[in-house]
Amino acid sequence: MAMDVISVIRTKRDRGALSDEQIDWVIDAYTRGEVADEQMSALAMAILLNGMDRREIARWTAAMIASGERMDFSALSRPTADKHSTGGVGDKITLPLAPLVAACGAAVPQLSGRGLGHTGGTLDKLESIPGWRALLSNEEMLSVLDGCGAVICAAGDGLAPADKKLYALRDVTGTVEAIPLIASSIMSKKIAEGTGSLVLDVKVGSGAFMKTVEDARELASTMVGLGTDHGVKTVALLTDMSTPLGLTAGNALEIRESVEVLAGGGPADVVELTLALAREMLDAAGLKDADPAKALADGSAMDVWRRMIAAQGGDPDAALPTSQDQHVITAPASGVLTRMDAYDIGVAAWRLGAGRARKEDPVQAAAGVELHAKPGDTVTAGQPLMTLHTDTPDRFAYALEATEGSYDIAPAGTAFTTSPVVLERIA
Amino acid sequence: MAMDVISVIRTKRDRGALSDEQIDWVIDAYTRGEVADEQMSALAMAILLNGMDRREIARWTAAMIASGERMDFSALSRPTADKHSTGGVGDKITLPLAPLVAACGAAVPQLSGRGLGHTGGTLDKLESIPGWRALLSNEEMLSVLDGCGAVICAAGDGLAPADKKLYALRDVTGTVEAIPLIASSIMSKKIAEGTGSLVLDVKVGSGAFMKTVEDARELASTMVGLGTDHGVKTVALLTDMSTPLGLTAGNALEIRESVEVLAGGGPADVVELTLALAREMLDAAGLKDADPAKALADGSAMDVWRRMIAAQGGDPDAALPTSQDQHVITAPASGVLTRMDAYDIGVAAWRLGAGRARKEDPVQAAAGVELHAKPGDTVTAGQPLMTLHTDTPDRFAYALEATEGSYDIAPAGTAFTTSPVVLERIA
Repeated sequence: MAMDVISVIRTKRDRGALSDEQIDWVIDAYTRGEVADEQMSALAMAILLNGMDRREIARWTAAMIASGERMDFSALSRPTADKHSTGGVGDKITLPLAPLVAACGAAVPQLSGRGLGHTGGTLDKLESIPGWRALLSNEEMLSVLDGCGAVICAAGDGLAPADKKLYALRDVTGTVEAIPLIASSIMSKKIAEGTGSLVLDVKVGSGAFMKTVEDARELASTMVGLGTDHGVKTVALLTDMSTPLGLTAGNALEIRESVEVLAGGGPADVVELTLALAREMLDAAGLKDADPAKALADGSAMDVWRRMIAAQGGDPDAALPTSQDQHVITAPASGVLTRMDAYDIGVAAWRLGAGRARKEDPVQAAAGVELHAKPGDTVTAGQPLMTLHTDTPDRFAYALEATEGSYDIAPAGTAFTTSPVVLERIA
Repeated sequence: MAMDVISVIRTKRDRGALSDEQIDWVIDAYTRGEVADEQMSALAMAILLNGMDRREIARWTAAMIASGERMDFSALSRPTADKHSTGGVGDKITLPLAPLVAACGAAVPQLSGRGLGHTGGTLDKLESIPGWRALLSNEEMLSVLDGCGAVICAAGDGLAPADKKLYALRDVTGTVEAIPLIASSIMSKKIAEGTGSLVLDVKVGSGAFMKTVEDARELASTMVGLGTDHGVKTVALLTDMSTPLGLTAGNALEIRESVEVLAGGGPADVVELTLALAREMLDAAGLKDADPAKALADGSAMDVWRRMIAAQGGDPDAALPTSQDQHVITAPASGVLTRMDAYDIGVAAWRLGAGRARKEDPVQAAAGVELHAKPGDTVTAGQPLMTLHTDTPDRFAYALEATEGSYDIAPAGTAFTTSPVVLERIA
């Protein structure tokens, strides 16, 4: 072998910077199977603990892009606008956002993933629509994108295969939470995808990967730098994930709420974040005069949604699955709801069957948590606070452990200020 | 699974202390194959970078001992005394030491290893004696030990299998140089072996694992603490490994030098260290009146050597293999030799064929480096400084790269003080 993996590991272990040659070699050799999983996981842990500098992260990202094919949207008549969220609880924003931005004139390719752990996945949610297919060939994808203006589908195997392998490895070796590895993983896929502009929704709070604004800011500015260096117009919003987004966490439950937003209704925070991200995407795509609020109000976003779902085999009018069993949690006291924890609600939805413990597991379409109050609301003792949905009622007890300390009720009259959904903008 | 490996990895990654339950579980699950290599290597890297405290190291060692069988020497009529060296260049001390200490009344079980990298292995050296066998059953081992007073053989597969697996993993993942893992690896085998007392020869300098006295001291005191906690009387000597021990590095070459020491001759530093370790071992075994210098002088140590070699199928009178090709390096100037680097000479011997690059490789019995001068000696331009031995002369050029800057010659008359072999004692 031209290089020696142990010397690469030692360099990072001993707090050195990896050379361009070391990075190119180790990513390529890992993709080819010459560097073993146990060697890459030791390197990943050393990167997590000792960090990487700007140049290393850029090279690492470029090497992952080079491990596979690149797509090209330049033949489309519209400018492309892409969005990525780092993942949260009740984060259904992609669902109303993609058709909304398409309705305003951009082309929106959303290569999405499935949920893992307590965070839901966009593809899992859409699969609760009868008939809808996540797997498209590159040609099908381009045809839906061209015909509808938006497409949400699974990323093909050809994009950044090094990242695919490394992501699966990090997931089982406690090396997910490394900012250089998160940033290069997200950006290698997005750059290989060939979008012209990208808006990042970096979540902060209990329900997110990044628990502090400082960590989220570092991740966001790293990704903005990577995108910009590769000619992708990139902007990041830091958004709150201490409380679930909207009133639902679960697959069909979130589809229902998204359709409400597309119909001009829906919870205020979901509408607020959808519009904020839409404006950023349209700006980045050069469509500064577009009016997304109007596109929600006049039904044009809903039209794109219906065509997009139908183009992938789904029936936009079909009844969505509903749960066989429900359990209602009521308020134990009267007062002001001051906290509804995103992580706890995410774990409860997961345990009810909305998420999976391992990649191979199936998810329940109808399972999840429906909230009847959000922080700032006044509640009365005995009123429903949330409803748990599942098809496997033996999981209620396990889910109730998660909801146990998930909310606080303060005496009536306690002052409460709602915090904004968008915390910061990084460009 | 009762525990979750990712939470164990995260605990150490986030600088926490592993609980006793976490340690017991992860060692057992790794031995059974439930924890995968890529998970254990990430944990090993986190341990290397974030360390372990006293309690964690003790528990980790106990868990590795518990992963396999334990031996018991209590049926022997003599007290047992064991010695372990952390490995160096020209470190043939076990060869004269084991029969010498046996000749003074102790039972000396030496379960030894093979060389890897630039350090030689005791078993590789002994295998250059025609007929000699390293692999003994537990019964054969006890019979040689009982009959001769000493035995040097390969450790059986039953002792600390967790350590065997982890050692091989660390070797390919850049996680060898972790003091907690080195200490627990050595001590788990020695404690499982069941010796009553143990003397550790912790090498310091260019040719050793530990390059600084501080690191060597930390490793030594960690191991002394572990031994003491498990009821094994343990003492450590920190000894110099900046210069090769004696005048030879190689397999048959070192056997020849060891036999010279047993015959009452041999290089002063080898004799000095052999006697220092013998006195420590005899002291630790409670044989305070023994006189190892006398046992070297009167031939009784040589008698034990001959019986021990013969008991394992070796012919102590057989001619040792000699190399097919030699290359002599001469002094480029006259003056005082002030440095002869242990690491460089070790690498040269390794490249000549005395060592192996991978565990599966064979070694050459006759290959190695023979020194004709040591630091402090006066040399004349053109006189032989060292002779390289090999059966594969195409390796001379590669070995000469290693010897290139391996020595310094100062102008005649330059003051030079020889440093002692034993630097420090830790009990």
